[in-house]
Amino acid sequence: MGSHPSSQLLTVGNEHFLIDCGEGTQYRLLEAHVRLGRLSSIFITHLHGDHYFGLFGLLNTLSLGGRTKDLYLFGPRGLGEILPEVFRQSGTQLTYPLHFQETDPDRPGPLWSTANVTVETLPLRHRVPCTGFLFRERKRLRSIQKDKLPDTIHYEHIRLLKEGQDVLDERGTLLYKNEDYTLPPPRPRAYAYCSDTLYWPELVPYIRGVDALYHEATFLTDLSELAEKTFHSTAWQAATIARDAGVGQLLIGHLSSRYPDPQPSLAEAQAIFPNTVMAVEGQVFDIANLPHTLVSDNK
Amino acid sequence: MGSHPSSQLLTVGNEHFLIDCGEGTQYRLLEAHVRLGRLSSIFITHLHGDHYFGLFGLLNTLSLGGRTKDLYLFGPRGLGEILPEVFRQSGTQLTYPLHFQETDPDRPGPLWSTANVTVETLPLRHRVPCTGFLFRERKRLRSIQKDKLPDTIHYEHIRLLKEGQDVLDERGTLLYKNEDYTLPPPRPRAYAYCSDTLYWPELVPYIRGVDALYHEATFLTDLSELAEKTFHSTAWQAATIARDAGVGQLLIGHLSSRYPDPQPSLAEAQAIFPNTVMAVEGQVFDIANLPHTLVSDNK
Repeated sequence: MGSHPSSQLLTVGNEHFLIDCGEGTQYRLLEAHVRLGRLSSIFITHLHGDHYFGLFGLLNTLSLGGRTKDLYLFGPRGLGEILPEVFRQSGTQLTYPLHFQETDPDRPGPLWSTANVTVETLPLRHRVPCTGFLFRERKRLRSIQKDKLPDTIHYEHIRLLKEGQDVLDERGTLLYKNEDYTLPPPRPRAYAYCSDTLYWPELVPYIRGVDALYHEATFLTDLSELAEKTFHSTAWQAATIARDAGVGQLLIGHLSSRYPDPQPSLAEAQAIFPNTVMAVEGQVFDIANLPHTLVSDNK
Repeated sequence: MGSHPSSQLLTVGNEHFLIDCGEGTQYRLLEAHVRLGRLSSIFITHLHGDHYFGLFGLLNTLSLGGRTKDLYLFGPRGLGEILPEVFRQSGTQLTYPLHFQETDPDRPGPLWSTANVTVETLPLRHRVPCTGFLFRERKRLRSIQKDKLPDTIHYEHIRLLKEGQDVLDERGTLLYKNEDYTLPPPRPRAYAYCSDTLYWPELVPYIRGVDALYHEATFLTDLSELAEKTFHSTAWQAATIARDAGVGQLLIGHLSSRYPDPQPSLAEAQAIFPNTVMAVEGQVFDIANLPHTLVSDNK
């Protein structure tokens, strides 16, 4: 039927972040048994229908479910005009505080932070105002060297060691010196979501070195003129951005419905940037039938 | 997840009419292989999300599919405020003319007509402005008595007989006298769709004698106070309306999610009005997974 709704669920620690919310997203989340109580925030890149027509229903459903926890919503200014009108016409009083904050592709940079992540707005170029989002883990715990620890250590002492502290007994005597039992924490990871956009090299410095980049790849190179005209990218262009930014892994998606077989798109990107996968295959939790879904987990 | 999207597709002749359009309706129509080119008009009863959140996506998809044929949309005034805003924010220019006409529960009566049906607005009472819709077949053709016709009759002569004409030859001599070969056409059928509403006996004269009535039956009688408070009906009340209006058949639906088993609702209605069925079971074409879907066909 033409439009393939987009949505990704990103999980960091015990917190869910929803990026875009195409029609039917709430039903896909239900099927995947996602605990919506852990959903802290929703990020909408732009106001084309395939990226947000499921938002109205999801916000409604959270209210029908009796949510009381604050929900944070980020998206283009127009969203702040449409939503109150939709709620007004339906006489809807949400059961939870919904905090809306406007995004602006001309003002990239820090947007929000939680206990688990910081989020930045990325500048994209599409037919309507559109931003990407960069999620950075705030910090990670030190790694325990299990073979060096006694079998009987108290779990509370493990927690202290993971947090980087030395462990003392009640009299202040050193029990475990941190550096003897732990290794430095893994580098905090970063994930960048970039859809929809034309090929936009100015994006590169914003996403340099991220662990994973999702970049749209609507067309193949033979349709690069159409890509430019419709403000979309080719697989080659997505891979070029990934290579120039030195990212760890590239996920591509948002393929035009004229490509039932994703293999040529993948091959075109891999020729430039070998570590490329299709976003639908990059799932950690399997959310069936949700195109362009990545569920990444902090385990 | 709380909300069960509502939508019904009514087919008369070669024309489709969509009544309400909950989230995901376009995907259910796709699965049912409905020819959207035959969709002439969409009727939205009210602006609670489960009855129209799929409209944005469906209108978009028709445009992406290159529709050029006029589409007629009927619904509460607020729809005429929300839709242009949604289209403006997405920079959408529909490929087809979309004609919106406002409905008003305080002004029931003739609303629209096509070659196949006339449509009237029915007065309902809900928490927000809400109307039902009454579809009446315009006329039906006379029935041919096949056993009285010669085997060799020209199909054009059959058409004339069905339309009620006598058939003459080129010189004006009577070949077939209409009343010798046909029976009067079946009475034009009527279908009334009434959801959502509290028990509203004033509705009865508007729907007297219709062949089929769809009436919501959200609750069972033991929750009639809750029904009144939320402007919904019980199965008993739906059946009372059907009985008092002398309809042919009652279809009930829109059951609260607290009733996973529809049997008690059906039993409660049948005690008052025996010819009651669940709307999900009243399908002629099977549109899987679309709650409250009736597809009725004029064959």
